Amino acid sequence: MNKGFASDNNAGIHPAVLKAISDANTGHVHGYGDDPYSREAILLFKDEFGADTEVFFVFNGTGANVLGLSTITRSYDSIVCSEKAHIQTDECGAPEKFTGCKLLPVATGNGKITPEGIIAHLHGFDFEHHSQPKVISISQVTEMGTVYYPEEIRELAELAHRHHMFLHMDGARISNAAVSLDMPFRSFTRDCGVDVLSFGGTKNGMMLGEAVLFFNPALTHETKYLRKQSMQLFSKMRFVSAQFLAFFKDDLWKENAIHANRMAKLLEKEIRKIPQIIITQNVDANAVFAIVPGNIIAALQEKYFFYLWDEKASEVRWMASFDTSEEEILDFTRFIKKLVS
Amino acid sequence: MNKGFASDNNAGIHPAVLKAISDANTGHVHGYGDDPYSREAILLFKDEFGADTEVFFVFNGTGANVLGLSTITRSYDSIVCSEKAHIQTDECGAPEKFTGCKLLPVATGNGKITPEGIIAHLHGFDFEHHSQPKVISISQVTEMGTVYYPEEIRELAELAHRHHMFLHMDGARISNAAVSLDMPFRSFTRDCGVDVLSFGGTKNGMMLGEAVLFFNPALTHETKYLRKQSMQLFSKMRFVSAQFLAFFKDDLWKENAIHANRMAKLLEKEIRKIPQIIITQNVDANAVFAIVPGNIIAALQEKYFFYLWDEKASEVRWMASFDTSEEEILDFTRFIKKLVS
Amino acid sequence: MNKGFASDNNAGIHPAVLKAISDANTGHVHGYGDDPYSREAILLFKDEFGADTEVFFVFNGTGANVLGLSTITRSYDSIVCSEKAHIQTDECGAPEKFTGCKLLPVATGNGKITPEGIIAHLHGFDFEHHSQPKVISISQVTEMGTVYYPEEIRELAELAHRHHMFLHMDGARISNAAVSLDMPFRSFTRDCGVDVLSFGGTKNGMMLGEAVLFFNPALTHETKYLRKQSMQLFSKMRFVSAQFLAFFKDDLWKENAIHANRMAKLLEKEIRKIPQIIITQNVDANAVFAIVPGNIIAALQEKYFFYLWDEKASEVRWMASFDTSEEEILDFTRFIKKLVS
Amino acid sequence: MNKGFASDNNAGIHPAVLKAISDANTGHVHGYGDDPYSREAILLFKDEFGADTEVFFVFNGTGANVLGLSTITRSYDSIVCSEKAHIQTDECGAPEKFTGCKLLPVATGNGKITPEGIIAHLHGFDFEHHSQPKVISISQVTEMGTVYYPEEIRELAELAHRHHMFLHMDGARISNAAVSLDMPFRSFTRDCGVDVLSFGGTKNGMMLGEAVLFFNPALTHETKYLRKQSMQLFSKMRFVSAQFLAFFKDDLWKENAIHANRMAKLLEKEIRKIPQIIITQNVDANAVFAIVPGNIIAALQEKYFFYLWDEKASEVRWMASFDTSEEEILDFTRFIKKLVS
Repeated sequence: MNKGFASDNNAGIHPAVLKAISDANTGHVHGYGDDPYSREAILLFKDEFGADTEVFFVFNGTGANVLGLSTITRSYDSIVCSEKAHIQTDECGAPEKFTGCKLLPVATGNGKITPEGIIAHLHGFDFEHHSQPKVISISQVTEMGTVYYPEEIRELAELAHRHHMFLHMDGARISNAAVSLDMPFRSFTRDCGVDVLSFGGTKNGMMLGEAVLFFNPALTHETKYLRKQSMQLFSKMRFVSAQFLAFFKDDLWKENAIHANRMAKLLEKEIRKIPQIIITQNVDANAVFAIVPGNIIAALQEKYFFYLWDEKASEVRWMASFDTSEEEILDFTRFIKKLVS
Repeated sequence: MNKGFASDNNAGIHPAVLKAISDANTGHVHGYGDDPYSREAILLFKDEFGADTEVFFVFNGTGANVLGLSTITRSYDSIVCSEKAHIQTDECGAPEKFTGCKLLPVATGNGKITPEGIIAHLHGFDFEHHSQPKVISISQVTEMGTVYYPEEIRELAELAHRHHMFLHMDGARISNAAVSLDMPFRSFTRDCGVDVLSFGGTKNGMMLGEAVLFFNPALTHETKYLRKQSMQLFSKMRFVSAQFLAFFKDDLWKENAIHANRMAKLLEKEIRKIPQIIITQNVDANAVFAIVPGNIIAALQEKYFFYLWDEKASEVRWMASFDTSEEEILDFTRFIKKLVS
Repeated sequence: MNKGFASDNNAGIHPAVLKAISDANTGHVHGYGDDPYSREAILLFKDEFGADTEVFFVFNGTGANVLGLSTITRSYDSIVCSEKAHIQTDECGAPEKFTGCKLLPVATGNGKITPEGIIAHLHGFDFEHHSQPKVISISQVTEMGTVYYPEEIRELAELAHRHHMFLHMDGARISNAAVSLDMPFRSFTRDCGVDVLSFGGTKNGMMLGEAVLFFNPALTHETKYLRKQSMQLFSKMRFVSAQFLAFFKDDLWKENAIHANRMAKLLEKEIRKIPQIIITQNVDANAVFAIVPGNIIAALQEKYFFYLWDEKASEVRWMASFDTSEEEILDFTRFIKKLVS
Repeated sequence: MNKGFASDNNAGIHPAVLKAISDANTGHVHGYGDDPYSREAILLFKDEFGADTEVFFVFNGTGANVLGLSTITRSYDSIVCSEKAHIQTDECGAPEKFTGCKLLPVATGNGKITPEGIIAHLHGFDFEHHSQPKVISISQVTEMGTVYYPEEIRELAELAHRHHMFLHMDGARISNAAVSLDMPFRSFTRDCGVDVLSFGGTKNGMMLGEAVLFFNPALTHETKYLRKQSMQLFSKMRFVSAQFLAFFKDDLWKENAIHANRMAKLLEKEIRKIPQIIITQNVDANAVFAIVPGNIIAALQEKYFFYLWDEKASEVRWMASFDTSEEEILDFTRFIKKLVS
């Protein structure tokens, strides 16, 4: 079967990342992060985000979001997010269960939320009957493949801080956002006022591993306990840390994300040549959303695995990965052309 | 620095396991366990434990315990365990936080709990003021390096079942127990009445990965949601599953555990030659507990990393791993002899 | 200061209810509900709702909702409700904290939710990434003072049951709904398919006390433990039960609710004579919502306590109680007329 | 049937308290504590405990303990308490469920815990694998009817504070302790270093109502939200507050507690005349624990309701209340004498 376009999660491990795991596999080191690989990986994050950045490695994206959010909330708080946010739709209630907080969804078409939508939830402060709004959470890249501009992020950060709230960013695909914006990570996160960032590795060529970054060290005196209690502390931590070493070495992250985004752009270009298919979202990063004639979907899914995003609308999601090839895109779109003709 | 004897967690990845990860790194497969590696790995577990065994892979031991326990409890239940159990002392309250249950510790010298100690907690059934005893949880190997005999496990299972409770086993080091008992996994778990088992891979040569096994499929209709909600669902699952394939192939697990246990026995033998050191626990598996003259500990820890188990008693824990060598043991004990002389 | 129209919570205790407390104050009885008053009160509920109804008394409305919802959910479930539901806006996140569930708000103008709005949330069944929709929760009377018709409730129950979900009703003001519909309690709850009901006493003349009713006894084997664990088990239970005895005796509940609703109707009638004020919701029960000229609010609130419901819209909420008098209504509206003229 | 000696919970409402409820039943007042009765009741507590005491009224003792403990802990903390503590044995896991914390029981014969027993749990500070010891919780009066001396409390407070922990006191029967020690409340609580106190009203003549007191206002910025989220905020708060007004007026609390304690002493005196019965605990307050010939228990319980404390040991608990009469004691002991002869 073909690779398909289901998810950047379906891809494997970049060879350089796998090699880093292998290279780290010598002798014994202390567990739980007290090892030279982890120390070096943390330094690389500090290089990117500032020396006072606090870095906590975790297993997966849900774990990263929950650890970040539980650090900055109490159980009576609320978290404002997109109705399409991963924390709202794809974490099976882990944020509510672990933080106790209420999630307040904001309607959105393109995955991005705006001050107008958020402000409707920013009331009841100091009123004990009402969950206290404490976090605005955004995804960068969004779940719809779109990317926030720095000025949009800054505006949300200001809105949050004006209300003594935090701005949290789910950066499961932050590398794709960075190359889309052509900016260093820091410029559209910390420098725009993001307080806590889930920094994703898994979807961009790592086997597994995410980092939770805090840009105010004063926030993090609880985080190490919360990481352990949320079952996200890895005993053989060096093998996540070593992956991050490869991830940053020679800007592998960038190479991977540039490639994935370019493949999505190529897919977009080829799809736009097919009048029966309508692309529904800006292709800012590595995802293409499109409305496809219902009658070709079964045949297409027989050869290529991908998700039907919205069955009623006949809308699909196609994701490109670091290992998607031009040829695969062209084969895929040729096949679609054949199906629709 | 030397490898030390701190923990089987400090070891790396067995080469055959690493190779399995590498071999699985081809093309795209569906995420979250819907892949051929995971299907095959599950079959291997069913071969060991019976065809109706339900298998859920997770990241780490704490995650395994919490997933197993949350599947078989409600928040108003209690879990009876050793005062030295990992779930009681080393999971930073993850079981309480995620299940809501009360943990009831039983005093123990050697890590094993007995019906006498447990029964004191088995009251208040049907009395709404009292957390309802629902689980007896034991560790096999125990945290003190001892191993339950099958008849002991059967007795605890009968005690549990007589009270409509479950018997849970934390098998983070279950391979070491199997070779210690020289029995198949099934004979001292399912066949003795264990209901839920955390089956450990990480401490026996894997990079990471544990399996939660349920021997009554009727229990598990909630488990897949609880795994996701407890942040233990791995997107690129094939890379844990592939490790288990290597783990079971040619009985690698057995080879590793036999070696680790043998090294602990060698260490025990050499240590017993040193009259100034008193071994405090049976060396059933891969751990040696010993009371060591306080004045040599600093010098010893300078060269070898290990944990001071009980500072007041001057008791240390030394763990052997799949990759501990005879030479390392002999160097280590020679060095001790020099220090005490 | 005048009584005001802030809330039926601001009223006191109906004299007959207070007398019942006093009458029950003789000698010792068993605590926690094992007393003759509680047994008799439970029978009265069974008379109203059917002999197999399970009845649990609790302290307050939030406790009632949480106990009902936690009985019928697991932590990975979701609860669909109005964006204006008490459980969504006025319980400080108690449902999320105690159940672990996600609450999914449905937009509504008049407080009532419809199948169209709910269905958007009914997807992702059996998909472990997604909180599992398990409950539709409605308030009767709604938070906007409107009342569901039996056929609307039946439709929601059918929608719920078709998806193997439950229909929960927050009946904090259920007496006002019953007299508004002029139906027995059972006809618009159990007989329409409601599974779990929070039956309110406090807002209709009791000092405190609510009952959680389950119409399927098979659901409730966990409830007694959950009530204790959620801190809602009253030691001197007889003093809540005795209040319910008075509540049902000679249909006191009906007399109180008829009066409160009639006072709201009178208020509506008088307010409609004032062209500067626009009534914004149907006055189905004991609440009147109205847009009031912003410049009179301060003066009005100086003499009468009530809540500004929506500051931006200049919308207020006026509640009538069992003890509101005609004269108070007429004084109040006369004063408004003076203010606006 | 006779009153029995089951619990001070089985008693009713002191007439003066009931009258206070009735007196407060005039007109409308703001809900949720913003009323003159509540303000006055808070002042009475400040008079007793110091002007900067923060006071939160709740429904019941479990609610009081949970609100106090959740204010001063995070989910990864642990709470050290007696193995016989109400929070350990009689709250159905509410502390674990709501706080997420681990409870660490200390063995005790007489209900009092000592530094020796506690210190065994005071380790693992700053070690992320281990729940962080944060609270020592004691009950005054203990569950065994004994009373801590001020110097004992001071010692525990110093132990707690030396470890940056808090001392929590469950004062469900604090009035009985005060009269037992013949000291003002403050002298053996705040002045001895208690940080948080559950102050009980229900067991000493009130219908219901407890107060959670914090002696460091800096701790309480979260408490009002936690009270609401833990379902302990009473809408018609005045009716709890008014009870406390009566409770403190003319030292009613003291009169009630003196009487109850005196009755227990009388019971002790009469029982000591019966050689077949052995009193097992000091009768410091209003409870008598005794080993009773097994063959008389059934006959005794037929006429008098009381709890068999420890079935195997044939140990019973008899509680005196504010409304126990001398005659009842004498009838009871006469009847016992007849039974044993």
